[in-house]
Amino acid sequence: MEHQRSDGNPKTARVPSGAAVMRAEVTTALTRSFFEEWARTGYAGLSLERVARTAGVGKAALYRRWPDKESMASDLLSHVGLTMTDVEQHGSLEADLYAVLVAIRRVLRHPKVRRILTDLHVEIERTPALGTAIRPLQRARRERINGLIDRAIKRRELSPMVDREMAADLIAAPLYWRMAVLGGRCDSAYIERLARITGAALRADTV
Amino acid sequence: MEHQRSDGNPKTARVPSGAAVMRAEVTTALTRSFFEEWARTGYAGLSLERVARTAGVGKAALYRRWPDKESMASDLLSHVGLTMTDVEQHGSLEADLYAVLVAIRRVLRHPKVRRILTDLHVEIERTPALGTAIRPLQRARRERINGLIDRAIKRRELSPMVDREMAADLIAAPLYWRMAVLGGRCDSAYIERLARITGAALRADTV
Repeated sequence: MEHQRSDGNPKTARVPSGAAVMRAEVTTALTRSFFEEWARTGYAGLSLERVARTAGVGKAALYRRWPDKESMASDLLSHVGLTMTDVEQHGSLEADLYAVLVAIRRVLRHPKVRRILTDLHVEIERTPALGTAIRPLQRARRERINGLIDRAIKRRELSPMVDREMAADLIAAPLYWRMAVLGGRCDSAYIERLARITGAALRADTV
Repeated sequence: MEHQRSDGNPKTARVPSGAAVMRAEVTTALTRSFFEEWARTGYAGLSLERVARTAGVGKAALYRRWPDKESMASDLLSHVGLTMTDVEQHGSLEADLYAVLVAIRRVLRHPKVRRILTDLHVEIERTPALGTAIRPLQRARRERINGLIDRAIKRRELSPMVDREMAADLIAAPLYWRMAVLGGRCDSAYIERLARITGAALRADTV
């Protein structure tokens, strides 16, 4: 999850006909300030007026881009995390697991991202639009993990019967639990050890 | 996590000298209404006035028991989850893991508990008293998992070098992720499979 639009292109925001071209730096400032406020106050307490003020622009500049809080959240979240989709090959199940865990750690290392993610998981039930908005993120993560599993099956490291849902839970959850829920740290030795025992768990999943 | 004080004894609440003995049913009603409001509005939006009104008692009855929201949350949370501490022996690592996972599922099956737990994990950073309040819960879970690991080491199913912190993450997190974060279900076949592959992960942790 990055704090800025991945492309920085103002044209990806809807441009009403006849409106002036929107300046990319205003979009960037609003995006940054939106995520900063979200981390600070939580989604429920997030005020778009304060977002615009913190970004140093008028409310109109914000509303020209997004009509309301839900749209702004949906739009910005759907741009986030797309940089996580590149699936590199590392030659073995453990090496692939290590690479995925390092990528997840990179994301969870930002305190703001941790705040927003945990808050998001609470707000999804109250604001269904947020659930829809994080689907691209979830899909990207799922594809990454599916690629990892496909390669391991081809190498005969995993059974084709491996439960992909459970594998996805098993790969993402312990790191999320340690870093976002417990607020703990994890060094490279932890990640290595976790990659190794997660590999053993997946190998044991044969039925 | 239960919605009622485990003992139902009004004397466990602080009784100011000279005050009338507090009625257990009022404490119970306030406790229930506190957790219901918390699940509904989140901790940040929780109003003690509404808690008292929903419980059908006056504000004074609430403030006689707890001076403020933090104290009420700390006190009630510290009474919760104590029923999870019984550590039964089931004869094998997988059977013990199955039992622990079933106990965690029992807790996470309540939508209200899921809401409160995910909300709690967000609020802990804003309200340090809540972090202190959930320590008994965390300690109870940790003891349960330590007992399970000790028994498995005695049976030579696990290495004495097993990383207990990582084991605790690995046992609690995937189920929490599936049920509380993704809002998914898990049947007994899922729990059985998860117990088996978690067992394989822990056996592989030998360094």
